[in-house]
Amino acid sequence: MGQNLVLNMANHGFSVGVYNRTTATTDEFIASLPNEREDKVLPGTIDRVKGYHTLEEFVGSLKSPKRVMIMVKAGKPVDAVIDQLKPLLSKGDIIIDGGNSDYKDTNRRTETLTKEGLRFIGTGVSGGEEGALKGPSIMPGGSHEAWPFVKDVFQAISAKVGPKGDIPCCDWVGDAGAGHYVKMVHNGIEYGDMQLICEAYFIMKEALGLTNEELYEVFKTWNEGELESYLIEITRDIFTVKDKETGKYLVDVILDTAQQKGTGKLMSQHALDLGVPTTLITEAVFARCLSAQKDERVRASKVLSGPTDTKYKGDKKQFIEDVRQALYASKLCSYAQGYVQLDAAAKEFGWKLNNGGIAMLWRGGCIIRSAFLGDIKSAFDKNPKLENLLLDDFFKKAVEKAQPSWRRVVAAAVELGLPIPVFSSALSYYDGYRNGRLPANLLQAQRDYFGAHTYERLDKPRGEMFHTDWIREKTN
Amino acid sequence: MGQNLVLNMANHGFSVGVYNRTTATTDEFIASLPNEREDKVLPGTIDRVKGYHTLEEFVGSLKSPKRVMIMVKAGKPVDAVIDQLKPLLSKGDIIIDGGNSDYKDTNRRTETLTKEGLRFIGTGVSGGEEGALKGPSIMPGGSHEAWPFVKDVFQAISAKVGPKGDIPCCDWVGDAGAGHYVKMVHNGIEYGDMQLICEAYFIMKEALGLTNEELYEVFKTWNEGELESYLIEITRDIFTVKDKETGKYLVDVILDTAQQKGTGKLMSQHALDLGVPTTLITEAVFARCLSAQKDERVRASKVLSGPTDTKYKGDKKQFIEDVRQALYASKLCSYAQGYVQLDAAAKEFGWKLNNGGIAMLWRGGCIIRSAFLGDIKSAFDKNPKLENLLLDDFFKKAVEKAQPSWRRVVAAAVELGLPIPVFSSALSYYDGYRNGRLPANLLQAQRDYFGAHTYERLDKPRGEMFHTDWIREKTN
Repeated sequence: MGQNLVLNMANHGFSVGVYNRTTATTDEFIASLPNEREDKVLPGTIDRVKGYHTLEEFVGSLKSPKRVMIMVKAGKPVDAVIDQLKPLLSKGDIIIDGGNSDYKDTNRRTETLTKEGLRFIGTGVSGGEEGALKGPSIMPGGSHEAWPFVKDVFQAISAKVGPKGDIPCCDWVGDAGAGHYVKMVHNGIEYGDMQLICEAYFIMKEALGLTNEELYEVFKTWNEGELESYLIEITRDIFTVKDKETGKYLVDVILDTAQQKGTGKLMSQHALDLGVPTTLITEAVFARCLSAQKDERVRASKVLSGPTDTKYKGDKKQFIEDVRQALYASKLCSYAQGYVQLDAAAKEFGWKLNNGGIAMLWRGGCIIRSAFLGDIKSAFDKNPKLENLLLDDFFKKAVEKAQPSWRRVVAAAVELGLPIPVFSSALSYYDGYRNGRLPANLLQAQRDYFGAHTYERLDKPRGEMFHTDWIREKTN
Repeated sequence: MGQNLVLNMANHGFSVGVYNRTTATTDEFIASLPNEREDKVLPGTIDRVKGYHTLEEFVGSLKSPKRVMIMVKAGKPVDAVIDQLKPLLSKGDIIIDGGNSDYKDTNRRTETLTKEGLRFIGTGVSGGEEGALKGPSIMPGGSHEAWPFVKDVFQAISAKVGPKGDIPCCDWVGDAGAGHYVKMVHNGIEYGDMQLICEAYFIMKEALGLTNEELYEVFKTWNEGELESYLIEITRDIFTVKDKETGKYLVDVILDTAQQKGTGKLMSQHALDLGVPTTLITEAVFARCLSAQKDERVRASKVLSGPTDTKYKGDKKQFIEDVRQALYASKLCSYAQGYVQLDAAAKEFGWKLNNGGIAMLWRGGCIIRSAFLGDIKSAFDKNPKLENLLLDDFFKKAVEKAQPSWRRVVAAAVELGLPIPVFSSALSYYDGYRNGRLPANLLQAQRDYFGAHTYERLDKPRGEMFHTDWIREKTN
């Protein structure tokens, strides 16, 4: 990924020095350049990339303010490289961490390095190997005063969107760890989107018995409408790939145990700290955990029974459209929750985030890129202080239109015994969010009964607390 | 709570010294004893409680090995008191933390103090003020060699259960933070149980229009069957309490914004770290978060529509029984998940936990005490290595019997637009757990497509990883 970012920069006319602690890695990279195909290396690129064997030579080659971008494994390796760099840098020089760092580390590093007279940028980069070369989504945060010195490079190499293809999927996100936080939210939303697609696949396969050929057609059609997105597109394509060994469709021979690298988890854990209900992404993380218990599930499947018939009896074509609407509405809830968490985090850390701008960062280059993000941008353009995407007029109408389908799909899954946990929790969230009166009054009564935790009243100002001696007052 | 524990000990014939950094608090406590009612102070108790004005005098009054129990706010105050105590204690003396400490702190304190020659016990104590006086559930962990020196006191003052009322709800849990971990799981399960009761209340109130008088009768009946428990009992009683100011039922004037003190959250966050799907308790925590967004929900309720009719059209009596069965089955899933997390934590930290024994600790004295815990004990007695409570024959039959009701309730809620997120996620978990083939194969295909994350195959040994160049292989 680091190498592709370097080529991307050089392809755009920037001179780049490279250093790796393993000298051979640097030498091999430089030596490989003349043999790269045209789509990797443009004319002049090779001359603009120089390799160095020591950190001293590398840093010495840079002009002031020096801009050093680190691409190493998140965690301690980042701190180790920073410690090596510090003695070689001067006041005002800029260290950029382009890895998948925990935003808490980026908060800390920005503070420490700023105190020491350096400038720090922690930036999310999304798009994988291919995106790094051809245009990733870039989400930088840290020392704001460093931004003018990297803006040209970052915006040049990032993905571009918009009618004229000139809007870069890169802009300043905010102070300290804001960039890495937004990247974490991106990844969490990616968990949600992927699980929703899996659940749509699951119910169409199990309840309707669709073949892979039919599933291909369904996702092809979906990708031509409001669900148009990279993930729907690659899902469509996945259904065309055959396994060479067995001749079966490859998707059917893949083991159903999802792995994860942890950013979805971090987002859920921070939602719990912030006290915001990010239920979909959390259920998506847990769905991966449950899928990983493969052997145990196989054992359980032989013991625990469910409905004997798992086939849907109604109109097939209508149900496919119901699933599409349910997916759309659920996805909307997921993004709504993601933005609520972003707002809460911004408040917690004192960041000023541009929600519409963030949608545009994700509009191209990254895994969750989609047409839908343009609609989110429009919603925040109309109302930058929108407290929940569901309240935007466009989305409100969309979800209300989807609602009957959504309810049919979830109810059918419940009756047929087919688990679609994220579709379900999306609907629970929608119904909970639009409910002015939830049953937490009883919960507060219970807490006051057994622990004297007190409660507020509907007819008194907020913050005024009451306690009842329930045991004395009960009349049975 | 500390004072009531002291009285409980003294009532059982133990001599107890007390110290508070605020001298007046100690003096007032000692001075109050002669006026306490019979049910608080037994004959001789007063003579057995002595107050001290300095920590030196207090510690000096204890016999070796000295046993000092700390009851202060969790976190830094515990470390502060330990630091004050250390110079006054000798090798083999015992510090006991009876507060609601984070198990990670207890892990650390056990390790540090053991190295310094002291012994440390971190113990969960559940039961509130009343339980502390009359018999709490006590969950001690830490330095195992300290256990013989506190066992008599702890088991004497704890709640007692069993046909003869002689089984103490206190036994050694395990090393280091195991006791506080089990207390955390207790609290998480408490979150789940309370939310499930709230959802049962909500759907019977909204879909069936039950009055508080009718709800009282329902919970009264439920408390006479397999749901018999402290929380059902107090819920029953809550429906009898009138508000003096308005004459209305008190539950109806209480604001529906749940508060929380954080142990449910800690359990969810650790489930995410362990990679185990503790979905119910997490949804219960998030339900509290959503309830806390009261003003926003009221605003949203005026914008977002749902089904126009929220009344259930079927047989009322049958539906109440359906809700009871759904509550029972969901509760079972919650405990199953709690025990799966306990097993995973035990593995992570090298604890040897006795699952059946833990059920007995909770059988009396604490908030989640119930008849049901006796059935859990029986399940682990039959098979101490039971990997999931759902696989026990008794519970398997129970959940299969409940299943049609459970599905009817969740489907009805979905159709009527009434959010019951924990009932729903319980059912998703059940259906996911008993499914030998989940759609994570597609998710792994997606991950391999965009990030070359590789996948395993159904027809190859576990651990053998494969990668496909999907873009090259796709045929559309």
